[in-house]
Amino acid sequence: MYLSGQNLLLKMSKQDVTIGVDIGGTNTKLGIVDRSGNCLSGLSIYTHAKEQYSLFLGNLFAAIEHVTAAAGGKDSLNIRAVGVGAPNANYFTGLIENAPNLGWGEKVPLAKSISEKIGLPVWCTNDANAAAIGELKFGVAKGLRNFVVITLGTGLGSGIVVNGSLVYGHDGFAGELGHVLVYEGGRLCGCGKRGCLETYVSATGIKRTVFALMADYNIKSELSGVSFDNLTAAMISTAANNGDKIALEAFETTGRILGMKLADTIAHLSPEAIVLFGGLAKAGDLIMEPTRKYMDEFSMEIFKGKTKLLFSNLEGDNTAILGSAALAWNELDNPGA
Amino acid sequence: MYLSGQNLLLKMSKQDVTIGVDIGGTNTKLGIVDRSGNCLSGLSIYTHAKEQYSLFLGNLFAAIEHVTAAAGGKDSLNIRAVGVGAPNANYFTGLIENAPNLGWGEKVPLAKSISEKIGLPVWCTNDANAAAIGELKFGVAKGLRNFVVITLGTGLGSGIVVNGSLVYGHDGFAGELGHVLVYEGGRLCGCGKRGCLETYVSATGIKRTVFALMADYNIKSELSGVSFDNLTAAMISTAANNGDKIALEAFETTGRILGMKLADTIAHLSPEAIVLFGGLAKAGDLIMEPTRKYMDEFSMEIFKGKTKLLFSNLEGDNTAILGSAALAWNELDNPGA
Repeated sequence: MYLSGQNLLLKMSKQDVTIGVDIGGTNTKLGIVDRSGNCLSGLSIYTHAKEQYSLFLGNLFAAIEHVTAAAGGKDSLNIRAVGVGAPNANYFTGLIENAPNLGWGEKVPLAKSISEKIGLPVWCTNDANAAAIGELKFGVAKGLRNFVVITLGTGLGSGIVVNGSLVYGHDGFAGELGHVLVYEGGRLCGCGKRGCLETYVSATGIKRTVFALMADYNIKSELSGVSFDNLTAAMISTAANNGDKIALEAFETTGRILGMKLADTIAHLSPEAIVLFGGLAKAGDLIMEPTRKYMDEFSMEIFKGKTKLLFSNLEGDNTAILGSAALAWNELDNPGA
Repeated sequence: MYLSGQNLLLKMSKQDVTIGVDIGGTNTKLGIVDRSGNCLSGLSIYTHAKEQYSLFLGNLFAAIEHVTAAAGGKDSLNIRAVGVGAPNANYFTGLIENAPNLGWGEKVPLAKSISEKIGLPVWCTNDANAAAIGELKFGVAKGLRNFVVITLGTGLGSGIVVNGSLVYGHDGFAGELGHVLVYEGGRLCGCGKRGCLETYVSATGIKRTVFALMADYNIKSELSGVSFDNLTAAMISTAANNGDKIALEAFETTGRILGMKLADTIAHLSPEAIVLFGGLAKAGDLIMEPTRKYMDEFSMEIFKGKTKLLFSNLEGDNTAILGSAALAWNELDNPGA
């Protein structure tokens, strides 16, 4: 293509950006992100997970137009690629495979649908992997070559980085630490197994622990007037900060189990850091202190005190967008890594 | 350097080889290995682990001279590098660090000592990592990019390969699967912790299980006349093949625990294959069948039936030499990987 002097200047002064998209069961967030991790524009739309996939796509493409305009428009942006975080999204195939909270079919051709429409490279992975790439490019794990991100939300997700690259395994599904075994025959998990880590360590897991402790102790607690449906991790934090015995023991138990299983993760990977991210991580020292203590206690001598336990510094409205955009930046900068 | 026509020809027709050295608590094996994994010569010497390190080094250098001569001599060989497998050897530092069965001090400058003497690049790692590189270069894992090798000897070692590279972690100590936790407060491990995998799954572990079962059942068994000191994994295999109830249950229990913990490894890494190697693996289906069954049973639906469970095909006198030589070849071919 021939470019006149002026057009060449325009072309060269365009800002390099990627689009980050985070698809959740209820909302989908998207935005335009520059190479330094600044979110130039952002938007949240309904996912309509139980409607047709085509409805979602139409809304997504309209939203992409919107965030592009809000970030200065196509004339000022050089949009390089799209990164998408979505439940059960497979990096290798570009498909969303059997996502229980999305009703769009067994295999949804996510990357292909987006790429065909907007003519850009598209990479996708699950939200916890996107969070790990976000930490690698823009967060507390910047520059680290071996670390693990644990997302503590409704469930427990994880993203593993080894030798500077995300671990996808042979099939794209590596990093399912929510489903390592804590106790044989333990709590029933949404995955169909029993005793999985996320049944103990997650916003839901600590709620279950509070109810188990109330069943065990039968004592008065700030939380004993709250129903199972209404209890939240934030309420348990508040009660613990008020000195409530049940709430304090729930955090101790949760951190103990997380620390115990992270010692197994350290025995596998000896990461430089483990980063805690998401709702339950907001409880701060309540979760960090027992986790760190038991992670050390259950580790071999050669590992004790070596793996840093950190909180994400990317918490905020745009975090999920940043993680997905980081996936795109990472692929552009280190193809295949 | 000027080479006359004839010398140039000699130089060019020299065969590229590496030296593989495997240091054990009792014996040290070494040999000359070509690029295809053929062991051109080999030798076993006493390690003299409780004597001076300098005695070992002197013996090692003499042995290197010997295997070089036995493989055709320096005129016909182009020795490229040395790979060493040794207990607690650290890939990053080249040191043997706090090896309990070697009495040479806390930090032994293994790679430096050898490299300074013979003027070649030297890489070292622990024996299980060397076994994994051996499988990658010459064995059943040839061409695989994601797999795990489990060595079942006196203890349980492991080497992990992700994205085609060995996982060393941030400090060189990744891959200590012998010390993941099976049962809180379980069997006392040599590492000082309780409940570690190798206290159940190893030649020693299955012996302990036989004794626990005899204590539990108090029934006649082929093995009830054998002392703890005298019982071996091979005797337990023989008894199981004869239909002995205690021996059969010991294999079932051992495979169940191994399978259960490998399901955790799969949740971390989703490897294409897990390779079993070493003495206890010689029991064949006795160990393979329960391991495979429970590995699947304890895995999430998305992982079931996908990770292959294989036996090493490198079993033999030269296996440890091949693994160490493979480390050197791998570094020459893929520096830093």
